[in-house]
Amino acid sequence: LLCLFFLHSRGSAIAKIVGANAKRLATFEDRVTMYVYEEMIDGKKLTEIINTTHENVKYLPGHKLPENVVAVPDVVEAAKDADILIFVVPHQFIRGLGTQLLGKIKPTAVGLSLIKGFDVAEGGGMELISHLITKHLKIPCSVLMGANLAGEVAEEKFCETTIGCRDMKIAQTLRDLFLTPNFRVVVVDDVDAVEICGALKNIVACGAGFVDGMGLGDNTKAAVIRLGLMEMIKFVDVFYPGSKLSTFFESCGVADLITTCGRNRKVSEAFVKTGKTIVELENEMLNGQKLQGPITAEEVNFMLKSKAMEDKFPLFTAIHKICTGVLKPQGFLDCLRNHPEHMTPWAKL
Amino acid sequence: LLCLFFLHSRGSAIAKIVGANAKRLATFEDRVTMYVYEEMIDGKKLTEIINTTHENVKYLPGHKLPENVVAVPDVVEAAKDADILIFVVPHQFIRGLGTQLLGKIKPTAVGLSLIKGFDVAEGGGMELISHLITKHLKIPCSVLMGANLAGEVAEEKFCETTIGCRDMKIAQTLRDLFLTPNFRVVVVDDVDAVEICGALKNIVACGAGFVDGMGLGDNTKAAVIRLGLMEMIKFVDVFYPGSKLSTFFESCGVADLITTCGRNRKVSEAFVKTGKTIVELENEMLNGQKLQGPITAEEVNFMLKSKAMEDKFPLFTAIHKICTGVLKPQGFLDCLRNHPEHMTPWAKL
Repeated sequence: LLCLFFLHSRGSAIAKIVGANAKRLATFEDRVTMYVYEEMIDGKKLTEIINTTHENVKYLPGHKLPENVVAVPDVVEAAKDADILIFVVPHQFIRGLGTQLLGKIKPTAVGLSLIKGFDVAEGGGMELISHLITKHLKIPCSVLMGANLAGEVAEEKFCETTIGCRDMKIAQTLRDLFLTPNFRVVVVDDVDAVEICGALKNIVACGAGFVDGMGLGDNTKAAVIRLGLMEMIKFVDVFYPGSKLSTFFESCGVADLITTCGRNRKVSEAFVKTGKTIVELENEMLNGQKLQGPITAEEVNFMLKSKAMEDKFPLFTAIHKICTGVLKPQGFLDCLRNHPEHMTPWAKL
Repeated sequence: LLCLFFLHSRGSAIAKIVGANAKRLATFEDRVTMYVYEEMIDGKKLTEIINTTHENVKYLPGHKLPENVVAVPDVVEAAKDADILIFVVPHQFIRGLGTQLLGKIKPTAVGLSLIKGFDVAEGGGMELISHLITKHLKIPCSVLMGANLAGEVAEEKFCETTIGCRDMKIAQTLRDLFLTPNFRVVVVDDVDAVEICGALKNIVACGAGFVDGMGLGDNTKAAVIRLGLMEMIKFVDVFYPGSKLSTFFESCGVADLITTCGRNRKVSEAFVKTGKTIVELENEMLNGQKLQGPITAEEVNFMLKSKAMEDKFPLFTAIHKICTGVLKPQGFLDCLRNHPEHMTPWAKL
């Protein structure tokens, strides 16, 4: 087996784990190729810096990568001999990769997506990234999601993760490739639910940021997280039926939601406090990088609207409307107060 | 209907809500009696201060209580005409209250417990507080639990709560009594599970504090919260079978767990950092008040040990052992690493 990798700070953190396990375990070839988009850093090529210093000085400075992880600037060269293709790229790059790689990878290769987000499908609606990979590369694709903040993973702090995989043999291989004493893996077969959790939690985190921006306190934030979780469950139930409730108790569900609502909400907090637009704040606070929550909220809203189901997901809908300036942040409270979860006293019986 | 109330800062916060609703709604008598343990404050009786200034200056200063909430220093006098008895006292007072009140309350009265914790049953094992109330007062008892930090409830910040009640008519009454635009009520019939969540979450919060004390980061804390939630679910399943998984998604479950792990963990954090005992820290940081987590962990451990099930709940067990000095805090990580939730790759299938 040989395995390949695509870049990012998150990708490099994962490369530390995968590289060390590939070297340690006899079932894997040592060499791990990591596709790196070539850039010049102080007059040197990034791939050359990585391959000589074993440090991704641009995206994960201060952490040594295992020496068997080899940076490759050519995507076809990096992927062509791989049995496992691991995707950690912004989701808008997937179509391009598909075009470049189709027919040039092993037909027996399998994919694993760590990408959190949806793709807008042709003709409206949404498409899961793992489905997109399968469609464009003609390979099966599993997913890995969970409460895995990149910096802490790189520092080898203890965490859990969830792999969603339909094939028991592939699942065992993927688990072996990732499992370490500080990176604990649970595999479930609810692949779509695992992936959808990873995307939708970013919408909920925007709501948590609004709560902070309005100074509403921990009870309110817990209510937003809980109502967000209920809409995540409902979303999967309506659009990808057949998943198990227990999947939402995995790291990809409740745990990732908690860490994301604790961390990734600075921009939406500032959005409420400053009155600036999301785009202005992305430019000021994220160097122009896009906040995932508003994008995902828009994609989800596009689908909900086309199916006349906005009122069935009032939290997702309100967050989208607030992000786009259609609803004032203060309107969020009315959304919470009138949430269908509270409407009937015996709704749960 | 007439309704009664027992004190505390949490009790006074709830008295604000209940008092206003009793006055507003025709189905309730206006007068709400609130039993207050008599103390002298600057030479004046606390009940007299409350009844003239409408402020519980000792336990909830700065908040006006509705004028129809009347503080009564005699427990029998406070309770004798009540149709609804609401309990918000430290759980060790319940037996004493039972002795004082038995035969002196309306036989048709119903109880509602807001008490978070267990009681150690005679002959070993644990007893739920609502069961204890039913046993000692011969009345049915519902429960109210959720992410309801007292200060924020008193400030009327938005929050959710869960009522566990087996009788639909009583449930409707209790919901009316508590529901406000900022205090949202969901009723479920899983009474025991709702109450057990309220007790067990305090154990998990100790674990979250250990993580902070060891500087382990957000991924690790999310893992502790998640594994704690899994043990809560398992505990209910083993000892109080028949509850629904969906109950753990209510405010009493995941939401209360999140707020508690965010707040009530200063002592267990200091426990790791300073090496002092829990008792020393309770004296220093809580004015000698007891931290609920270690007590509940001990009660749970007593039961698990007697049933030889300590290894089935390794997180609860490790937290108890750390609190009592049997295990070093650093041993907590081994507990997480070897947790049965991670042991079999396909455990979830």
